[in-house]
Amino acid sequence: MLSISVRGEQMPASPIRKLVPYAEAAKKRGTKVYHLNIGQPDIETPPAIVDAVKNADIRVLEYSHSAGNESYRRKLVQYYTSVGIDVTHNQIMITTGGSEAIQFAFMVCLNPGDEVIIPEPFYANYNGFAVAAGVKVVPITASIDNGFALPPISEFEKVITPRTKAIMVCNPNNPTGYLYSRAEMEALKSICLERDLFLFSDEAYREFCYDGAFVSALHLEGMDQHVVLMDTISKRYSACGARIGALVTKNAAVYNAAMKFAQARLSPPGLAQIMGEAAIDLPASYFDAPKAEYQARRDLLVRRLNAIPGVFCPNPGGAFYAIAQLPIDDSDRFCQWMLESFSHEGQTVMMAPATGFYGTPGLGKKEVRLAYVLNLHDIAAAMDCLEAALHQYPGRTAVTAPAALASGV
Amino acid sequence: MLSISVRGEQMPASPIRKLVPYAEAAKKRGTKVYHLNIGQPDIETPPAIVDAVKNADIRVLEYSHSAGNESYRRKLVQYYTSVGIDVTHNQIMITTGGSEAIQFAFMVCLNPGDEVIIPEPFYANYNGFAVAAGVKVVPITASIDNGFALPPISEFEKVITPRTKAIMVCNPNNPTGYLYSRAEMEALKSICLERDLFLFSDEAYREFCYDGAFVSALHLEGMDQHVVLMDTISKRYSACGARIGALVTKNAAVYNAAMKFAQARLSPPGLAQIMGEAAIDLPASYFDAPKAEYQARRDLLVRRLNAIPGVFCPNPGGAFYAIAQLPIDDSDRFCQWMLESFSHEGQTVMMAPATGFYGTPGLGKKEVRLAYVLNLHDIAAAMDCLEAALHQYPGRTAVTAPAALASGV
Repeated sequence: MLSISVRGEQMPASPIRKLVPYAEAAKKRGTKVYHLNIGQPDIETPPAIVDAVKNADIRVLEYSHSAGNESYRRKLVQYYTSVGIDVTHNQIMITTGGSEAIQFAFMVCLNPGDEVIIPEPFYANYNGFAVAAGVKVVPITASIDNGFALPPISEFEKVITPRTKAIMVCNPNNPTGYLYSRAEMEALKSICLERDLFLFSDEAYREFCYDGAFVSALHLEGMDQHVVLMDTISKRYSACGARIGALVTKNAAVYNAAMKFAQARLSPPGLAQIMGEAAIDLPASYFDAPKAEYQARRDLLVRRLNAIPGVFCPNPGGAFYAIAQLPIDDSDRFCQWMLESFSHEGQTVMMAPATGFYGTPGLGKKEVRLAYVLNLHDIAAAMDCLEAALHQYPGRTAVTAPAALASGV
Repeated sequence: MLSISVRGEQMPASPIRKLVPYAEAAKKRGTKVYHLNIGQPDIETPPAIVDAVKNADIRVLEYSHSAGNESYRRKLVQYYTSVGIDVTHNQIMITTGGSEAIQFAFMVCLNPGDEVIIPEPFYANYNGFAVAAGVKVVPITASIDNGFALPPISEFEKVITPRTKAIMVCNPNNPTGYLYSRAEMEALKSICLERDLFLFSDEAYREFCYDGAFVSALHLEGMDQHVVLMDTISKRYSACGARIGALVTKNAAVYNAAMKFAQARLSPPGLAQIMGEAAIDLPASYFDAPKAEYQARRDLLVRRLNAIPGVFCPNPGGAFYAIAQLPIDDSDRFCQWMLESFSHEGQTVMMAPATGFYGTPGLGKKEVRLAYVLNLHDIAAAMDCLEAALHQYPGRTAVTAPAALASGV
């Protein structure tokens, strides 16, 4: 009997997409669904970078260099310099989205059975890349009570084993929106140097920091051999469909091994590389408008959430996500119920149950992730829906204010 | 001490690209290099499909469906129908090049340590995907003497173990150009059914068959659960840089598991999907010109090769590759020597030593792969160079006609 592989079975289905059939059914019934469930921005892709593709002179769309077009990598050096990251074009590898950069890092730095420590809640697809690479994700729980700050280093130390090879962070964080402080990044540096661990840093949302300064893993001195940075143009330029990212590392052994994986798949997408290269020529002021827009959305979303009795949402410092704690029995059930059994003036909201972002079973049952990728009007309407839903939901629980709320954090 | 993973070390470097530094040095010396080393066609990408991207109305370049745009998959059903393959759009998954389709198949169908049997010489990057998936490639040697026909099924049976999960073929073949006959495909079917093995069929060159009919693995009746087809637009439409391929299977368990891998990496390239979809609307006559061009090149290349004393090149039935046996000591040394130490009227040729296409160490030392991706004039000039080189090469060996040549095959 033909059967699929164990990893084919173990591969997790996307926790974000599993509610899609319920959303589709709701739409078929005529209900308007506000999508706060996925990080697909509604911000316009800069026309200048779309036009760069349209104006390109393409006679034969050839394979590019496996590390990406050299002209693009040289341009990216300018970009990284502008954000205080000092790298050469030979330390940058263009990848098929940030996703491929993560896959390369897992494949190149960890053996099957090796462990990577990741603060939870974390981006759910890290699980998928870990299964593909046979790597074990070891979660360390961050708490909504302090806004999902980095857990104390002592927590990391408790779970380090001889198989631990890396710590991974997403900064600013998806799904929490938390922006790691300089002190937190320095703490990660200390333990990585002391225990000789790689530091994987997913910096997809680097441009979107609203409170406090962004500290890249490549800003940390003395960590050249330890840091592997994963990057993408998806969120930065609202170009998720382009599938252009980058792996950046000063560790030559890691780079050279990743290059062999890159050669096997020949080259990253060619048309979208033109787009990525053109993006470097956008004026520095380009980010002002989307950043202001996201910040206004965050402010509205967080204010509205915290005004609902029993709801607590820490104020995220970056990215475009927030995790809210709700007075509910089960976030999976609640999110499904909102699509299946609820509407408010013909409208409802799709959110991501936070359970999918925790590695520890049972966590996140009272939490949902909201991506503020809709305009202010829609966010306000979505909050009206959520407020009404929490009044009607049969699984509503007693209000238990988290410690942080009580203490005013 | 930080170290990379075992698979990072084991990952093979591209055997095709390892001579690149020598080619670059030759060009710096002013030598013209004819590139017969890689399958990068010089055929123009159809302007209509490039224009489809240029004319697309893109406000936000969003993630597509993880399986690719439904509109594209529905169009592909038309395409597959036109080549006698009966599938639905839910049996087609758009991938990032054919490369990703191969990766998905390995990941989904084989456990680490499982074995896939592949007739050698084979496309070298299969090795890379096997290392990434922890899969063992078991080669069965095909012989230049009969033009690299499928080895007898008894040879497959000899190497089947309890870990054997799949047989993989590329048809028409890269690197040999061999086009498998109906009888050979039926023989593969028999053993796959009898021993319950997957049949992976890489059909990247389907459109380019010059002698005999193309038989797809999906033309084989009763094999719905066994066949996983890998496809790509790279060669078909001379769009290698687009990075658009497809995994096609009627095995729902395989499809659904592959879908989880597809979801983890979010979506295939968006701009290039527009290109792929537009390609389905090219007139059926589109392939006439490139096919005639490739066939003329093949005829010239094979005629010129066989006219050189001591050289034997079987006539390949498809794709745009040929493997020639040369009167030389070592194909790696010879190919490097042609770039490093030889020129003929200021010109030389870059070829791929066939050693990189064999899994069995020591094979292919007298063979090179030539990709006929240059125009007739350049192929003639390249053959002039090769002929001159074989006169001068210090490692030339005595002419030993292969059995097939002696017997007139």
